[in-house]
Amino acid sequence: MDPFPHPDLAMLVPLLGTWAGEGEGRYPTIEPFRYREQAWFTHVGKPFVAYRHGTVNLATDQPAHAESGYLRAIAPAQIELVLVHPTGIVEVSEGEVNAQPDGLALHLMTIAVPRTPTAKEVTSVERRITVTGDTLRYQVSMGAVGQPHQHHLAAELHRRD
Amino acid sequence: MDPFPHPDLAMLVPLLGTWAGEGEGRYPTIEPFRYREQAWFTHVGKPFVAYRHGTVNLATDQPAHAESGYLRAIAPAQIELVLVHPTGIVEVSEGEVNAQPDGLALHLMTIAVPRTPTAKEVTSVERRITVTGDTLRYQVSMGAVGQPHQHHLAAELHRRD
Repeated sequence: MDPFPHPDLAMLVPLLGTWAGEGEGRYPTIEPFRYREQAWFTHVGKPFVAYRHGTVNLATDQPAHAESGYLRAIAPAQIELVLVHPTGIVEVSEGEVNAQPDGLALHLMTIAVPRTPTAKEVTSVERRITVTGDTLRYQVSMGAVGQPHQHHLAAELHRRD
Repeated sequence: MDPFPHPDLAMLVPLLGTWAGEGEGRYPTIEPFRYREQAWFTHVGKPFVAYRHGTVNLATDQPAHAESGYLRAIAPAQIELVLVHPTGIVEVSEGEVNAQPDGLALHLMTIAVPRTPTAKEVTSVERRITVTGDTLRYQVSMGAVGQPHQHHLAAELHRRD
């Protein structure tokens, strides 16, 4: 039986669940690509949301990206994120969440992007997520490999449970 | 159908699977505690292992800790780790893995411990994992909240699949 969400997660409850859908990515240094995605936002009754996702490249049908992390509820509308990529990149972010009709709007910006010695250089990651009912949309902007901060990913997911 | 492990994961294959067991923790600043744990080491055919675990405090039967990250195979015996805690702590580590009879021995030491603004101070995390057949043992040492680097956790897990 799932525990009741921690009171500090009240504004993040619309995120909780399993989501699936499709997205597209682009960046000046790579070919544009499309992907399907599954994402999980779960909780254990504590004031954080565990998040992970996996994507499959639509052109190759091969696993593309994965990421995993925790959204921490710091104050009613204030959140922190720690997130890791298998590419050796880490996002340490601050942000805020706002209630929206039948959902939420969430914005996160890295305050540090640590990485392992062999990882590519990433200097900034910005995430915007909106949930409206059973639809989740997100956009990711990124500064990396000498390129200025700019749009990288956009996806639309639908609630599976 | 699971893909075949990437060749660079050859030495890490004994880790792959689902593990469960019990452990105990201590630190000068807290009461000793015992926990049960489930841990998952998975792969998608790429040269990294996704890892996550969850623990339950044996005294309270409540969720205790969680962590999630990626082990990156850099060279045959060389690995990197990026791992996040819901406490806002990040481990960025380097280490090595060595083949052992019917298993492996793995050692990781943080090269950086980034954290969110509201997280407690952690200055070092060291992980030793051995796998012998269907038994996984690990020890975690940590420097935190002004205390010198020292033993923190020890557990023994058994393969579930």
